[in-house]
Amino acid sequence: MKSPMMKRLFVLLLFTNIALAADPLPSWNEGPAKQAILQLVRDTADSSNPKFVPSEQRIAAFDQDGTTWVEQPIYTQVMFALDRVKAVVEKDPTLAAVEPFKTVVSGDWAAIAKLTLPDLEKIVGATHSGMTVEQFQAMVRDWMTTAKHPRFKRSYMDLAYQPMLEVMELLRANGYKTYFVTGGGQDFVRAYSKEVYGIPVNQVVGSAGETKFAYAPDGKGVLIKQPKILLVDDKAGKPEGINLVIGQRPIITFGNSDGDRQMLEYTQGGDGARLMLLVHHDDAVREYAYGAESKIGTFSDALAAEAKQRGWIVISMKNDWNRVFAFDK
Amino acid sequence: MKSPMMKRLFVLLLFTNIALAADPLPSWNEGPAKQAILQLVRDTADSSNPKFVPSEQRIAAFDQDGTTWVEQPIYTQVMFALDRVKAVVEKDPTLAAVEPFKTVVSGDWAAIAKLTLPDLEKIVGATHSGMTVEQFQAMVRDWMTTAKHPRFKRSYMDLAYQPMLEVMELLRANGYKTYFVTGGGQDFVRAYSKEVYGIPVNQVVGSAGETKFAYAPDGKGVLIKQPKILLVDDKAGKPEGINLVIGQRPIITFGNSDGDRQMLEYTQGGDGARLMLLVHHDDAVREYAYGAESKIGTFSDALAAEAKQRGWIVISMKNDWNRVFAFDK
Repeated sequence: MKSPMMKRLFVLLLFTNIALAADPLPSWNEGPAKQAILQLVRDTADSSNPKFVPSEQRIAAFDQDGTTWVEQPIYTQVMFALDRVKAVVEKDPTLAAVEPFKTVVSGDWAAIAKLTLPDLEKIVGATHSGMTVEQFQAMVRDWMTTAKHPRFKRSYMDLAYQPMLEVMELLRANGYKTYFVTGGGQDFVRAYSKEVYGIPVNQVVGSAGETKFAYAPDGKGVLIKQPKILLVDDKAGKPEGINLVIGQRPIITFGNSDGDRQMLEYTQGGDGARLMLLVHHDDAVREYAYGAESKIGTFSDALAAEAKQRGWIVISMKNDWNRVFAFDK
Repeated sequence: MKSPMMKRLFVLLLFTNIALAADPLPSWNEGPAKQAILQLVRDTADSSNPKFVPSEQRIAAFDQDGTTWVEQPIYTQVMFALDRVKAVVEKDPTLAAVEPFKTVVSGDWAAIAKLTLPDLEKIVGATHSGMTVEQFQAMVRDWMTTAKHPRFKRSYMDLAYQPMLEVMELLRANGYKTYFVTGGGQDFVRAYSKEVYGIPVNQVVGSAGETKFAYAPDGKGVLIKQPKILLVDDKAGKPEGINLVIGQRPIITFGNSDGDRQMLEYTQGGDGARLMLLVHHDDAVREYAYGAESKIGTFSDALAAEAKQRGWIVISMKNDWNRVFAFDK
């Protein structure tokens, strides 16, 4: 090494590495959750370690809503669908008298919160179909640039949890592929997953509607979104979605609710090193506090008991995270 | 560069690169197919080229049967299923009197070749379900190590086309992800795709049955294969499967039959550089010669006309390939 500039660069790189090695998870407080994550990464990425995992098997799975960003007072995708209903009703005003559209346009949040799953399916059917996949995703991206969360008054994209973004970075830096395995719509999440989380479209497993191959007026082949469910990527549907898109069990999996139970069990069912974690929302000041009683992101007593029995790590948002959002001081 | 060893290494690397650059496709004869492939790779992987494609969009899709390995006299997976029928009938001898099992155990190839799609579905249902995904794949791998092709008297794994293996290597060396998009069973192809083609399990799009999450006796979560179709990844199902697993249109796509038409149209429907190719089986000496009349791998006159009209490249096995298999001289 001859030139002083090269030497300086080398020293800089060395210190950057040491800094990263010293704390790749700065938004995490010291504790069992942080230690377990760091330990798993050390064990599985080091070829001399008996728990080493070949890079092509280094799969990390993340639920999205409530695990990597805010899911209260209702899922972001439902917010999008509700806004889309307004556009649909504008085009066809007779719908304003028909449920569940009537409730949506009323703006009565208490009533909206009580919409049933079949109601939401009708809304998603009416607002998420009849266009090409690309047109739909352009619509989602447009909405994302203007929509604001009702409490935080910020873009939904700002409401990703900083500690989880750090975990994703750490895993990728150690040869892991980071996947979403979400109950949310696959085409919806793909519209922003790269920008917000660094997760490419081919690493998004989600609920999916059917698509129909057709020809645009210029003769080009397109896929038209249909109002018909192909896969509900929730509960037992999560392992099924993982097999369909990833084809192997994850090594490390993060969830936050009863909907993630089977995905964590499936992860743990594999041989060798595995780590299962659940984000627990116990921080009403910085985010929200909810659990067994919540309709959104239910964390039942049975799930808590199973986590304890099976050795899953419960992440306390209040105690394990010194920062929730990138915009927090 | 001070040390002679470093200099030698550098020269070696340089020559290796030149050698690769000189002919990364040695089993291809000079001609429009080879030139089109090399041109696409040069254009899309060079950031100074106006046709440059960012690496995360560099997706290559390959049909399997008849495109990357032999599909005559019948698909390899059907051969596997027929062998499995024997094991199933051994367990339940009453099945030997019931169609389509009766025909299969008769060993009458003319009759077996006439089995209808519903017959084959019954056979696949009986032989590809009721076990975990892992158990099924272990079964496929076992079979693959002993089964032999009736004409070539070699392992099916030896019947991959050497020119296509070279194309896959070339694409991967230039930042492409190589995907299978096959009408064959996704779980089946995943059992050997890495070993035979260098394609990892998460890059196999295929026909898929439903799976059911369940618990093994030791409490571990497993997925049990069900005798129920979720996705038929053929014809219009191929673009749908691509959207589900890959989430974006391929840049370069290889097929060989009417079943690949929509996948090629979907590829071409994207913006920028795209290349669509069809392998044509016109080499009865080294492999097989078949086309519009064949039930397996039908290459209809309408497909030939569309290829011409849309500018798709038809690869002549006889003229474009100087070697078909790795074991050829």
